[in-house]
Amino acid sequence: MRKVKIYDTTLRDGAQGEGISYSVQDKILIAKELDLLGVHYIEGGWPGSNPKDMEFFLKMRKVSLKNSTLAAFSMTRRLNTKAKEDQNIKALVKSKADIITIVGKTWDLHVVDVLRTSLDENIAMIQDTISFIVSEGLTVFYDAEHFFDAYKSDKEYAFKTLIAAQSAGAKEICLCDTNGGTLPQDISRIVSEVKNKVSAGLGIHCHNDSGVAIANSLAAVLAGADMVQGTINGIGERSGNADLIAIIANLQLKMGIECIKHEKLKELTHVSHYISEISNLRQRNDQPYVGQSSFAHKGGMHINAITKNPKTYEHINPAEVGNSRRILVSELAGKTGVLIRAKDLHLDLNKDTPETKKILKLIQKLEHQGYHFEAAEASFEILMKKALKKYKKFFELEGFRVVIERQSDKKVTTEAIIKIKVKGKKEHTVSMGDGPVNALDNALRKALRDFYPNLSKMHLSDFKVRVLDEKSGTAAKVRVLIQSQDEKDSWNTIGVSENIIEASWQALVDSVEYKLLKDNIK
Amino acid sequence: MRKVKIYDTTLRDGAQGEGISYSVQDKILIAKELDLLGVHYIEGGWPGSNPKDMEFFLKMRKVSLKNSTLAAFSMTRRLNTKAKEDQNIKALVKSKADIITIVGKTWDLHVVDVLRTSLDENIAMIQDTISFIVSEGLTVFYDAEHFFDAYKSDKEYAFKTLIAAQSAGAKEICLCDTNGGTLPQDISRIVSEVKNKVSAGLGIHCHNDSGVAIANSLAAVLAGADMVQGTINGIGERSGNADLIAIIANLQLKMGIECIKHEKLKELTHVSHYISEISNLRQRNDQPYVGQSSFAHKGGMHINAITKNPKTYEHINPAEVGNSRRILVSELAGKTGVLIRAKDLHLDLNKDTPETKKILKLIQKLEHQGYHFEAAEASFEILMKKALKKYKKFFELEGFRVVIERQSDKKVTTEAIIKIKVKGKKEHTVSMGDGPVNALDNALRKALRDFYPNLSKMHLSDFKVRVLDEKSGTAAKVRVLIQSQDEKDSWNTIGVSENIIEASWQALVDSVEYKLLKDNIK
Repeated sequence: MRKVKIYDTTLRDGAQGEGISYSVQDKILIAKELDLLGVHYIEGGWPGSNPKDMEFFLKMRKVSLKNSTLAAFSMTRRLNTKAKEDQNIKALVKSKADIITIVGKTWDLHVVDVLRTSLDENIAMIQDTISFIVSEGLTVFYDAEHFFDAYKSDKEYAFKTLIAAQSAGAKEICLCDTNGGTLPQDISRIVSEVKNKVSAGLGIHCHNDSGVAIANSLAAVLAGADMVQGTINGIGERSGNADLIAIIANLQLKMGIECIKHEKLKELTHVSHYISEISNLRQRNDQPYVGQSSFAHKGGMHINAITKNPKTYEHINPAEVGNSRRILVSELAGKTGVLIRAKDLHLDLNKDTPETKKILKLIQKLEHQGYHFEAAEASFEILMKKALKKYKKFFELEGFRVVIERQSDKKVTTEAIIKIKVKGKKEHTVSMGDGPVNALDNALRKALRDFYPNLSKMHLSDFKVRVLDEKSGTAAKVRVLIQSQDEKDSWNTIGVSENIIEASWQALVDSVEYKLLKDNIK
Repeated sequence: MRKVKIYDTTLRDGAQGEGISYSVQDKILIAKELDLLGVHYIEGGWPGSNPKDMEFFLKMRKVSLKNSTLAAFSMTRRLNTKAKEDQNIKALVKSKADIITIVGKTWDLHVVDVLRTSLDENIAMIQDTISFIVSEGLTVFYDAEHFFDAYKSDKEYAFKTLIAAQSAGAKEICLCDTNGGTLPQDISRIVSEVKNKVSAGLGIHCHNDSGVAIANSLAAVLAGADMVQGTINGIGERSGNADLIAIIANLQLKMGIECIKHEKLKELTHVSHYISEISNLRQRNDQPYVGQSSFAHKGGMHINAITKNPKTYEHINPAEVGNSRRILVSELAGKTGVLIRAKDLHLDLNKDTPETKKILKLIQKLEHQGYHFEAAEASFEILMKKALKKYKKFFELEGFRVVIERQSDKKVTTEAIIKIKVKGKKEHTVSMGDGPVNALDNALRKALRDFYPNLSKMHLSDFKVRVLDEKSGTAAKVRVLIQSQDEKDSWNTIGVSENIIEASWQALVDSVEYKLLKDNIK
């Protein structure tokens, strides 16, 4: 079986993504997770560029990785110096990473317009940098920045830079589509040509500016690349890097090429969600293979076919990547949908039990009122458990009051007061907030925190409002969807009312109760 | 120059996406936008499957499209009936769409396991359905569902179904990778083979389950397809459909193949954002070509290189697709966009007037705060007029208070109190409402009705809320979009605040003021 190595650069190139900022601790958590998944290389950062990255490498010496090897990154040495005297390069040696990845210029435009030096000096920078690091006993990988643009601009010079890196001792030459502008047909052709001219290992590093980074990575592997660089979930600058999640799944499940141990494939969904969470990024619901919607089926026809044979509308078995099928419950889905969901939840329900009919009637009634359980499975689960009497209340609301006030100075203040009964005790709390829902959320957490400390681990991650009956104008019924997440999962809840605050409250309560149910809190 | 036709199915297959639910009015707005962009075909829905889709087609008869042709979709006729007696098929004729797209089974597995009929009856269903519709004088396109799986399972039968559709009169045969499991190398090989056997036009319809839908669509075009089906932003079931935005940009800017008029390419960013808004979907910041981060540069090295030569880190000039470069330390805004809008409003503004600079600065500031004038042109117009002093206040707010109360009997009541000054008179009104926005709306109308009686002719028709900064949970900033209408027009306004009530208030006030401006009320 052919093998391809996975080089993860989430911690270095991924961290360039807009809004991403990892602490050293975040980086260590991500590195451990990548090691468990079993990627071959983890690029941890650029130790010469900032003290945080150096600290990461120093701390990682105490972490024993089982499957992965750490790599440290840097540019070639500065202009007109010597590599052994360059601070950046010395920092690499100090990092004690086993692999040193050096990026160098390949595109004449960059040498002339950005470095503003001669083509020969650039070659010298590549050779000198790599030779010095090799002489320190370290393994060097070489990233050929903008290789595909370089090839189109001055093919001969582009090859010269690769040969310079190879003869200086680089073990892998990685072709980078730095601007992400190359299409698969060009990747195939150019990588094949390089494969014939280079004897070192050959890697590929793609960006997603044209929306084809995954396909480009696969095309390079077909053309002979033996290493793929990318990031988990494709995070990274601009439109991101190549998404290793889909690349690993495609290579292994579709192309019969091994990247990680087969039994680790089912960790892909978990790793993807975990890293989204640490990166403080919303998980894309439609992300290939691992998204919440990736195996979600809507509409009776599809659901009917799926129950007859899952292959009819699923390209793989979702369990292979640790994901699961979701039957979106809606008026379209009918009884089959409810039964499938009940089975998933290990609830004892079949098409002849009286509860099935009861739940179906209830769903119909609620959907008629504007509930939409397709996008609110946590609320649906609570509803089913309530109907089956497999549910006890965690608290009872006696009432709330929210006051929003805007003064003539344009300052807006919000205050929420709630009265609830928890475990026999009355709680009466008040809280300010940045808006009515936040104020209610704060007041509710204040009332519950001593009883249910695990609630501090969850937070609301999205909030959507939809007007249901537009003809009624501002008096229309609204549907509120809340997405919440903790360090492991994310879940959706729903509320419907003419009053947006009441609808938000319903969704908020379901969200909190789902968290408590999920954590088996009594 | 080679040409490829674009067949948009946002309104049909895109609407299958989780959480998407278009009103008839939403569909009409999207269709008009697609027509302006200039896609060749707009698949509007499945008129036989639900009354909403039929209503869309009936209403579209009064809308004159300049560039696009409407298509209506359906399955082949039911088992063991006649097409001319099938309600679904009759609905197609009734829809008066110019193109009828029929999807049929191609994969033996589906015929046997899902339809549970004979392979011959399936062929008869395809032939009978298409022949009947052609005999009604309509043009038929044929969607070969699961073609690539069908090919791998029983190639001979798969081809038989295509030939049946072609000989029954289908003008285009569209090969669908319905489960999205096929990789580009297989698409290339199989489409090339079909191209040699079929004389009708050849289309491609991809899903993104393997993360390569864009690349698959391009591979099919390289192998001879002359029509690409997809959706704007790739919205659709599971991991979505092929994203037409990136496909159009790649074909036209990278492969020299014409899809839409060259001057319309710069509308891609606008169309993408507009359709996200109407779909109530968050725009992906990293979406290729049109995302907010697609041309965002972080870190000194890249920014430095970009200022020396933009080609160093940009695969295309962002203006070509209507996007713009963002330097993440300080935002740049599009002067051209402002000038174009000013011209539309007959405002006297050119690139050298000092007001232009002032408006640009203001927009930058507001967009940085989360305003998004793309979908709120009425607010934008008010903003421009204010900046140009072509605007007088219709009233002044001194303050408001909203109280929402839920009692233990679960009844929720809302009361809004507002203090405003109109034409020198103080008005202090109070009103109940079905929610805080409705209560404010009622109280505002109560205060203004004697001064501006024409306000009774307008009402709010839609209301959308989006969380802007998910990290802050319920304390996040929210963007409220309000759509209002009177007997003649509809218009959109915006408000942004951490407080949903304040954001709604801003949008509400803009909406009322826009109505008064529009009616030339003094």
